Amino acid sequence: MNEIRIGIIGFGTVGAGVVEGIQKNGAWMAGRTGITPVVAKIADLDITTDRGITLPEGILTPDAQSLISDENIDLIVELIGGTTIARTFTLEALKRGKPVVTANKALLADHGEELYKTAREHGTGIYYEAAVGGGIPVLRAQREGLVGNRIENIYGILNGTCNYILTRMEREGLPFDEILADAQKLGYAETPPDLDIDGLDTAHKAVVLASMAYGAPVPMSAVSAKGIRGLSGEEISNADALGYRIKLLSIIKENAGKIELSVEPALVPKTHMISSVNDSFNAVFVKGDMVGDTMYYGRGAGRLPTGSAVIGDIMEAAADKLHNVGTPSSVTIMLQKDSLSYLPSGDIEKRCYIRLPQGDLKAAVEILEKHGIGVSSVEKSMSVILTHRAKESTFVAAMAELGDAVRLRLENFE
Amino acid sequence: MNEIRIGIIGFGTVGAGVVEGIQKNGAWMAGRTGITPVVAKIADLDITTDRGITLPEGILTPDAQSLISDENIDLIVELIGGTTIARTFTLEALKRGKPVVTANKALLADHGEELYKTAREHGTGIYYEAAVGGGIPVLRAQREGLVGNRIENIYGILNGTCNYILTRMEREGLPFDEILADAQKLGYAETPPDLDIDGLDTAHKAVVLASMAYGAPVPMSAVSAKGIRGLSGEEISNADALGYRIKLLSIIKENAGKIELSVEPALVPKTHMISSVNDSFNAVFVKGDMVGDTMYYGRGAGRLPTGSAVIGDIMEAAADKLHNVGTPSSVTIMLQKDSLSYLPSGDIEKRCYIRLPQGDLKAAVEILEKHGIGVSSVEKSMSVILTHRAKESTFVAAMAELGDAVRLRLENFE
Repeated sequence: MNEIRIGIIGFGTVGAGVVEGIQKNGAWMAGRTGITPVVAKIADLDITTDRGITLPEGILTPDAQSLISDENIDLIVELIGGTTIARTFTLEALKRGKPVVTANKALLADHGEELYKTAREHGTGIYYEAAVGGGIPVLRAQREGLVGNRIENIYGILNGTCNYILTRMEREGLPFDEILADAQKLGYAETPPDLDIDGLDTAHKAVVLASMAYGAPVPMSAVSAKGIRGLSGEEISNADALGYRIKLLSIIKENAGKIELSVEPALVPKTHMISSVNDSFNAVFVKGDMVGDTMYYGRGAGRLPTGSAVIGDIMEAAADKLHNVGTPSSVTIMLQKDSLSYLPSGDIEKRCYIRLPQGDLKAAVEILEKHGIGVSSVEKSMSVILTHRAKESTFVAAMAELGDAVRLRLENFE
Repeated sequence: MNEIRIGIIGFGTVGAGVVEGIQKNGAWMAGRTGITPVVAKIADLDITTDRGITLPEGILTPDAQSLISDENIDLIVELIGGTTIARTFTLEALKRGKPVVTANKALLADHGEELYKTAREHGTGIYYEAAVGGGIPVLRAQREGLVGNRIENIYGILNGTCNYILTRMEREGLPFDEILADAQKLGYAETPPDLDIDGLDTAHKAVVLASMAYGAPVPMSAVSAKGIRGLSGEEISNADALGYRIKLLSIIKENAGKIELSVEPALVPKTHMISSVNDSFNAVFVKGDMVGDTMYYGRGAGRLPTGSAVIGDIMEAAADKLHNVGTPSSVTIMLQKDSLSYLPSGDIEKRCYIRLPQGDLKAAVEILEKHGIGVSSVEKSMSVILTHRAKESTFVAAMAELGDAVRLRLENFE
């Protein structure tokens, strides 16, 4: 029986989930794969807090460096988060030829290219299924299951905190601030909540998905990102009355060699499956030119779901090591091309929902039409206009003349 | 650059889709994986029909045997269907150490154990992602992404023909026979349609999913299967009024070491995502003890979607060959245990919907309660009773006393 000796750096929520999963199901995994996962060492600055997990003597250490240099450790799991020390540790491990498993989307979004290249140079791998969609094996599905496809587009609900807030706003009719405060109390949202609700976390994940879909490191600057902060309950109830729900949507599309990468709250039709993704769940729609529409759904965060994805990667890395795969496809695909072309945010075409809190709907329609934006319908009772497709830059120009107005994307998946 | 030289046996719908996909995206795949897929030979008894695909001279042959014995062919794709010649060809290829990719669920359900063992004995693999859920990479997700989990249950909509018929019955309010006839005219249903509408095709797929979840060959005799033939429009409209939709559901569950394997039409709540799976789409819900609920959705059939899954397997088999993996996990997992224990169909617990076309609801409630079946609600206007959970054998006994009545499972996913 082969063994994979694991060094875990970071014994927080996910780290504890990984250890719990291996303790509980390690023998089952060994029976399925022929490889026994062994937690050899865990490093965390805090070695006293009780995580509710019984560890053999001598496993826990405050010295992360010692795990990286330990020749009896085959693989490093990086779960400390952030992009500074995490980067240092990851690079060091890769330089020693040790594969690294990580759930750190910010690290990949900010330093992915450096990490993939370092892994390739040293004939090893970095594995990051847990970085996107928590427990959902969506990167693996795209990379392997859909390998025969060119990816046409990807629509994702990638942030559980935002989706939880939007779902509760819709169900309970309460304002954003109140639900956010409650979500923070319940541990569903961080304090401060900025990374989640301003769309940055979703953008990090979109960057990883897009890199894999199109085969090159994608810079964060390629993403137009907007969050859900301050979204009004009126938009949610108007959307509902019009047959839509509001979701924080990441949109990745290729058109004529240019890639659109946006993150923004959008009205999505209730008839589309994506509108049924509620609470803290995540979902990713991937459309391939052969397979057509596919969807992957599950818990995007949490101790055991994210732990499940980390363990999937540990076992993949172990098999790759056993078979001397060297640089795995999770690295080579990200470096398939040197760079990609992106659609500037102003050139992104979309439909919009526009609400005029106080204003002359007729004049607004005239302004929009003057800018070449077609109006699809006018909802007088809500003071809302739904438009046809137009470029973002055109909307920005028209909005400057409309005065006080709320604008959201309207996505029909056409 | 490494090459994988492919021999395809069966140049029908899916075979043509595979070739089209490789012709279109082969170079892209090579860029992503380092392996170039090459269609070396295609065998079909019919070498004259135009499939709309241009092939180099000498690729097409009526002699399947010559592909199996050709030392320049690395891998066999079996797409002839059926369980007789397909079995012979598959066994012969495996015995020569050639990996086989197949979309043939009937072959796996009827002869899986023999095939997995033959593959293991000869240090090669059989790959069958396309056999379940068409283009959806759900077997790979379960085997690799969820490797850290014990599977608690699987709910699947696995037959696109049935789901298409049910969706149209619901939308158009037309009777089963009329929709079926139309589906046959449009090519959505085969003639005769028995394999699909009587649940056998779904049962084949459930057997493969259950084998992978619990790690042993599952015999077809372990499945209690019922189809949708003759389902009345009244059930569909009653379900709708009660907040449900009717789906042909495959249910795989483990409880105290015994596995429930059923295929039957069931009322599912509209609030559950599975009720949103419409038309010819398939979906599989997999619940793991770490990851919780996950779902995989996409096209369960068709030339290019199924071709996409076959190509995913071809590229996996090619990588396994390149790295001398020998017997892959798609084989070892199916033989992890010798056998499993199954819940006899009479012992399966479920809730039910019971309609009495003409009858005394009060007397019926008394009969049910006499048998120990709790009644959850009585819908007088529809002459319908919804029950609490009870064993199938108890329902059978009670129904014998109820006279003419319609009974369907009611599944709340609890």
